[in-house]
Amino acid sequence: MSDSIEQLAREFERFPGIGPRQAKRFVYYILATSASTRITMANLIEKVGNEVRRCVVCHRFQNGSKEQCSICDDKSRDTTSLLVVEKDQDIIAIEKTNLYHGYYFVLGGVLTLSGKGIIRDEALMKLIAQKVKNGLSEVVLALSATSEGEHTTDHLRLLLAPYRSQVRISVLGRGLATGTEIEYTDEQTISAAIVNRKES
Amino acid sequence: MSDSIEQLAREFERFPGIGPRQAKRFVYYILATSASTRITMANLIEKVGNEVRRCVVCHRFQNGSKEQCSICDDKSRDTTSLLVVEKDQDIIAIEKTNLYHGYYFVLGGVLTLSGKGIIRDEALMKLIAQKVKNGLSEVVLALSATSEGEHTTDHLRLLLAPYRSQVRISVLGRGLATGTEIEYTDEQTISAAIVNRKES
Amino acid sequence: MSDSIEQLAREFERFPGIGPRQAKRFVYYILATSASTRITMANLIEKVGNEVRRCVVCHRFQNGSKEQCSICDDKSRDTTSLLVVEKDQDIIAIEKTNLYHGYYFVLGGVLTLSGKGIIRDEALMKLIAQKVKNGLSEVVLALSATSEGEHTTDHLRLLLAPYRSQVRISVLGRGLATGTEIEYTDEQTISAAIVNRKES
Amino acid sequence: MSDSIEQLAREFERFPGIGPRQAKRFVYYILATSASTRITMANLIEKVGNEVRRCVVCHRFQNGSKEQCSICDDKSRDTTSLLVVEKDQDIIAIEKTNLYHGYYFVLGGVLTLSGKGIIRDEALMKLIAQKVKNGLSEVVLALSATSEGEHTTDHLRLLLAPYRSQVRISVLGRGLATGTEIEYTDEQTISAAIVNRKES
Repeated sequence: MSDSIEQLAREFERFPGIGPRQAKRFVYYILATSASTRITMANLIEKVGNEVRRCVVCHRFQNGSKEQCSICDDKSRDTTSLLVVEKDQDIIAIEKTNLYHGYYFVLGGVLTLSGKGIIRDEALMKLIAQKVKNGLSEVVLALSATSEGEHTTDHLRLLLAPYRSQVRISVLGRGLATGTEIEYTDEQTISAAIVNRKES
Repeated sequence: MSDSIEQLAREFERFPGIGPRQAKRFVYYILATSASTRITMANLIEKVGNEVRRCVVCHRFQNGSKEQCSICDDKSRDTTSLLVVEKDQDIIAIEKTNLYHGYYFVLGGVLTLSGKGIIRDEALMKLIAQKVKNGLSEVVLALSATSEGEHTTDHLRLLLAPYRSQVRISVLGRGLATGTEIEYTDEQTISAAIVNRKES
Repeated sequence: MSDSIEQLAREFERFPGIGPRQAKRFVYYILATSASTRITMANLIEKVGNEVRRCVVCHRFQNGSKEQCSICDDKSRDTTSLLVVEKDQDIIAIEKTNLYHGYYFVLGGVLTLSGKGIIRDEALMKLIAQKVKNGLSEVVLALSATSEGEHTTDHLRLLLAPYRSQVRISVLGRGLATGTEIEYTDEQTISAAIVNRKES
Repeated sequence: MSDSIEQLAREFERFPGIGPRQAKRFVYYILATSASTRITMANLIEKVGNEVRRCVVCHRFQNGSKEQCSICDDKSRDTTSLLVVEKDQDIIAIEKTNLYHGYYFVLGGVLTLSGKGIIRDEALMKLIAQKVKNGLSEVVLALSATSEGEHTTDHLRLLLAPYRSQVRISVLGRGLATGTEIEYTDEQTISAAIVNRKES
């Protein structure tokens, strides 16, 4: 079909989880909106790129001209704890629980089993070196419970070995997820649930 | 979280089939692209709105400054036939079959069972009135095989009644879809398949 | 675990669509029923094998000691028409529509694309030879709309070629299934729906 | 359709997770097997009912004429620990991990939130009273991570309160299940994963 329709569809096809058909539907949705909505959207896409930058400390995306994000800037948080996540969205999920009050670090992904993948492990080590001087006592490696997540956790654990005397290295608890029945749970998760059983 | 991230996420949430979480993932995808990609995308969104307009005859979206789309403009097509679809994408699907060579009309949707919904039935009637003078002999009502699609087909059939002496009103064939087994087919479809059985 | 539990689970695993875990759940369900329920079920399984036999004419399963099933025995049905299905359940599905009043023949399956599979094509040809003498005028090949179903239809069409002067060979109508939208319909089905469009 | 086919189908419809259509397919599967297979199956269904009985100690189903099952009979297992499950299948799942070496008790289900449901809580209390005299030091309440499972755990915890000085009451660990990503994990599970984080 026509040019700019096709071109825009091709851009949407690059969006995570979007195939050619849904990309086309997005274009028709946009064609059906008002000119002002399209201008708003176009402006936001440019603006978000200019206004949003990664926090120089934790590397999560943040709005505004400040170097540090609102969390890293918040002096009331617990300076003894740092929690390492894969991506920005994980911070949102963890903040929602209201159970963690320390600082974060966005690793930027996980390593593949063959060791590929770019993660900010060097920046993490620099940050930890500095935080240790200021009382850091726990690093939580809050990565996915997938084989790649575990592989990356192993990699970080190795890098963190020199700090073991000062800093507790912890990982998220493994076990039954909310709403699941034992009969339908995989063996590895049951194993973790048994090993991690706790007084109640 | 931050402002323009939230604002853009809210725009993506309006996209067909997109929830809050995927909207947020789109924003992070955009943040991870290059500035030039973002500018391209923003430009395309504005451009598509300016460059693309509905064909004055069939009402499908088309690129360029012409009033009529490439299909309506194509004099080699079969002037005796008009096929009515709900939306632009349906034309793409039908063109792919290479079995229909007449003209199209985009209705813009279907009526709900309670009679709501805005469709271009008036524009369709005007177009047919004109095409009848130029030899139109078939109108194919190619709407969805849903109850709303059938309701809309009934509505159009009524409007078209005055032309019945000159124009054959037809609907798409109903029956077994490719790849389906009888055992797993609903009663209505089996009924259609029996009634529409054909010499082979 | 224990013997007869395992043995019964293994029997249930052979049921169509049943995996090891559901098979085990069936056993525990049976253990939880009353002794009289278990006896009833055991008796029925033996009884069904003794009481049910294939109709000598159409080959569908039927209860009782008669040679012919209730449909083949029903003189009020339309003797001019024979409808060929893959399996017993298809007859139930077609009878429900109340649109077909002739007789049936259960082929017993379909041929694979490589020509394998055992079907009752010889028995079918014998039946047709006989029915032609008694006024048969249509054979409906009501097989699945899958590639194997079509392959088998082709095979039967060839066998039936000698009768073409007396008997109309038909197949089930192909097209949009109830409840489907054009945008989500495969190309082959849209093609069938266009070719099989009909006056309405 | 015919009698014993229908009757048997109705029996299969009572199987867990089986609807009318699959029940009918089971009957046709049985009709297609050999007479000897049907006799085997019928015999097994009766036999399993006669041969299998609940262990008088842990209440799980066991084959044979013994009062106690092979696990309860196994003197080499850890007498200090008792693990309470909902159903027989859960024992299989836990035994597979090879991480638990104590004894079991099959509760027979969970209580609904409105307090309904029949569970063997009295038998459990009697067993515990007796085991405490023989060195029991831990009871693991290994119920589902559902609201009903938790409600039942609360109920048992209350009943077990008098033993708290001698016996540790524990529950399975809660947290990330194997293979899951944080972004797609519910808030309650993330909360559990944070609270249950552990040194690694």
